[in-house]
Amino acid sequence: MNAATTRATALADVAAWDREHDVVVVGHGGAGACAAIEAVRAGADTLVLEKQTRGGGSSAVSTGVVYFGGGTRVQKACGFDDSVEEMTKFVRLAAGREADDDKVRLFCDNSVEHFDWLVDLGVDFKDSYVAGKTTHPFDDSCLFYSGNELVHPFKEQATPAPRGHKVAREGEAGGYFMEPILQATEAVGATILNECGAERAIVDDAGRVVGVVARQGDSVLNIKARRGVILCAGGFIDNKEMVAKHATDLLIANWNCSDGFDDGSGILLGAGAGGELRNMHEGLALNAYYPPDGHLKGILVDRNGQRFINEDAYLGRTTDAMIFKAGGHAYLIVDDELFGQTQAFHKLAAVEETFEELEKALEMPEGELVHTIEVYNRNAERGEDPLHNKSPDYCRPLSAPPYAAIDCTSAGCIYGMLTLGGLATRASGEVLTQDGDEISGLYAAGRNTAGLCLEGRTYASGMSLGDVTFFGRLAGRSAAAAAPWE
Amino acid sequence: MNAATTRATALADVAAWDREHDVVVVGHGGAGACAAIEAVRAGADTLVLEKQTRGGGSSAVSTGVVYFGGGTRVQKACGFDDSVEEMTKFVRLAAGREADDDKVRLFCDNSVEHFDWLVDLGVDFKDSYVAGKTTHPFDDSCLFYSGNELVHPFKEQATPAPRGHKVAREGEAGGYFMEPILQATEAVGATILNECGAERAIVDDAGRVVGVVARQGDSVLNIKARRGVILCAGGFIDNKEMVAKHATDLLIANWNCSDGFDDGSGILLGAGAGGELRNMHEGLALNAYYPPDGHLKGILVDRNGQRFINEDAYLGRTTDAMIFKAGGHAYLIVDDELFGQTQAFHKLAAVEETFEELEKALEMPEGELVHTIEVYNRNAERGEDPLHNKSPDYCRPLSAPPYAAIDCTSAGCIYGMLTLGGLATRASGEVLTQDGDEISGLYAAGRNTAGLCLEGRTYASGMSLGDVTFFGRLAGRSAAAAAPWE
Repeated sequence: MNAATTRATALADVAAWDREHDVVVVGHGGAGACAAIEAVRAGADTLVLEKQTRGGGSSAVSTGVVYFGGGTRVQKACGFDDSVEEMTKFVRLAAGREADDDKVRLFCDNSVEHFDWLVDLGVDFKDSYVAGKTTHPFDDSCLFYSGNELVHPFKEQATPAPRGHKVAREGEAGGYFMEPILQATEAVGATILNECGAERAIVDDAGRVVGVVARQGDSVLNIKARRGVILCAGGFIDNKEMVAKHATDLLIANWNCSDGFDDGSGILLGAGAGGELRNMHEGLALNAYYPPDGHLKGILVDRNGQRFINEDAYLGRTTDAMIFKAGGHAYLIVDDELFGQTQAFHKLAAVEETFEELEKALEMPEGELVHTIEVYNRNAERGEDPLHNKSPDYCRPLSAPPYAAIDCTSAGCIYGMLTLGGLATRASGEVLTQDGDEISGLYAAGRNTAGLCLEGRTYASGMSLGDVTFFGRLAGRSAAAAAPWE
Repeated sequence: MNAATTRATALADVAAWDREHDVVVVGHGGAGACAAIEAVRAGADTLVLEKQTRGGGSSAVSTGVVYFGGGTRVQKACGFDDSVEEMTKFVRLAAGREADDDKVRLFCDNSVEHFDWLVDLGVDFKDSYVAGKTTHPFDDSCLFYSGNELVHPFKEQATPAPRGHKVAREGEAGGYFMEPILQATEAVGATILNECGAERAIVDDAGRVVGVVARQGDSVLNIKARRGVILCAGGFIDNKEMVAKHATDLLIANWNCSDGFDDGSGILLGAGAGGELRNMHEGLALNAYYPPDGHLKGILVDRNGQRFINEDAYLGRTTDAMIFKAGGHAYLIVDDELFGQTQAFHKLAAVEETFEELEKALEMPEGELVHTIEVYNRNAERGEDPLHNKSPDYCRPLSAPPYAAIDCTSAGCIYGMLTLGGLATRASGEVLTQDGDEISGLYAAGRNTAGLCLEGRTYASGMSLGDVTFFGRLAGRSAAAAAPWE
């Protein structure tokens, strides 16, 4: 795969149309499905193109967690007070320093409505809360703290509330999340073409996008989009040439958080039609050293045995620190009572009866790890962490031998990764040029865009499903409302 | 200033030409001057546009250090063996992980020739070497180790040689460096328009750049470029909106390494003509805590009193670590014998008789700084640094009270910064689209481009002057050799 944009075809070179629709949605994952549903409901004749044998996309291989707040049915039932105001404060931090304020505001203002909208489609969330830090509830429970809400330095800046909402299904539930949404795309009356990938935009003389060239098997189809094309074809973590070119630091990834089709093709197609590429160097990296949540009571150390981050932060933040602060070379030190199996196939770098032996086995400079643990233990005894402000809930001395060093290098476990850069868009979905102008007829949502959250180090779980479904809807409405080009 | 690209003007909208030349160079700094000289020598009628009252650009406010190697006259006279091969090995590392191999190879293969070319123009380098780590020789000496050549982990991968060449003038000598080059531009016969800035490209129907619209005072000039336009208008560190949009982490800068005109206008002009923006998130950050080179015998610590980098590395590398590893919050700890004034107006965070008192004054967690220094001193006694592999030359215990903490936060000293992203180009200067195609008639060099070095953490001093002058020359030759468009 390559990293060059995909040149648009000139309308003048289109001999005949094979299909004509009001709105053409490229990709039938979370963003595309929600875009299509809203477009159809707004009266648009809508076609959805899906490269794979059926829809779902990377949303269907996620854990099925959506970020909602401001007082959802589940939050209320579980006894949590939340407000749009506090949610907005937190999401503004979580979205990153250069986040689009319109996107943050719309996402938070409409979060309860969006929750209800998905429930109406048939997405099921239980009125149940799970305490303790986890990537997602492993059973069919719903609500949990999915980001850095309770974590320094976020908790001091926004009143915490749990906002991760997992669908009512055991295990990784992205497929279960997508099922009713995919059914709704069909039920509302969108036309779906599977095993059909969009290859390039078709652009008229004025630069308006008027359709796409698609490929289904050996057939090449010229598909007219009277009102708009919506690009929802995912990120680019599966395109290593693009990752190397734009996001060199993400090359440490050894596991793509994707369905295997996040090849950047939608981004390159949009760029070929004049769309600006934005935030392309950023991604979300996840080294899931927890759960078990006892692991948060362990300590992360670098090759010199020094701590570098509060271990109770969300994995996006701790993994970013592993990469940028520890140079990709980190260990989680736990004692026998804390030790447990992770989901990320962590290897054991060493197990020893004493910290001195552990330090030696890890070939660390003499005395460093021993010192780190001595200091950590002394403070943890009092429930304190003066170095990194880990929550008192997770401060407890390491004192039950043997002691293990869990290998948190990319050689020793899974570093999952997804990209957070893509086409520049308005909150309402219009793709923008480098001049900041809208490209007529072109919309995008989901990981095809530089979306809601722009930094892995501030991310919260559920922000991506939340982003793609919510802004997919807005893009669908915008395209449906656009004036037809002929 | 804003961050949007500058839309090109259509040739059809140009009523009349005010000037006509073969080659139009935008910007009369290091890149533009060298481009113009080569273009004129190749027979092209060449115009240089300069926004300021006279040329020089950011090159003229630099220290006047150029990176050369492979056996220059100065290297030989000073008794240093160097080879193109070892230089290439080092420059490949120094240019960053995604560096353009063609640029690296051409730069190194032709380094001696380029040195001689500049000497022929009248740029004067003394056959003298300065030992010790410095940003640049303060007197009129020439040769010094200007990057990470002698530093772990570089020294293990390429045979070190000093390759920083400073022009024969005391102090910051960028102006002295540029003087003969600017004179040469005029002497060879280029036409120079000062106080005249290019505002947008003029593009024909086929997308070829055929000229620029420029402004001189109240006059707007349509300037035809028969063979090509060469963009040499510098980086974008002076455009805070562009920095925020593309390189958020560089917002820590409180000093721009520029002449005040690195406003990104050339980059935005090129992007408006279809050029790809590349590596826009990267920059070179410089917190010059040395010289005095005794400061390298001090230790850099974060807010927890922990070391995070070998202090003998080049400032681009240590400052990158201050930002990404220490979160922008670092101190240099020295004893009374090492203490000296820096060039970067460092404040003193604390001065105390004991390390315990220093730790307390800095509000660090109890015992951490004391431990760090105890370990550092014990190893330094043996000339060792097992934590960060600082060279034995700079390992010596801190033992002469009082002890000072020099404030290395951006509130306490200068964080100088320049940008390392810009237009995508071939080594020979052609600007490339996102498709990887050349844009006919458009060339660029210098900080207007994603050039030779793409990462601040591997940079070596002199790479930018080396880059801009060398690749400026290649762009000048390419434009002069292009077929005229009419």
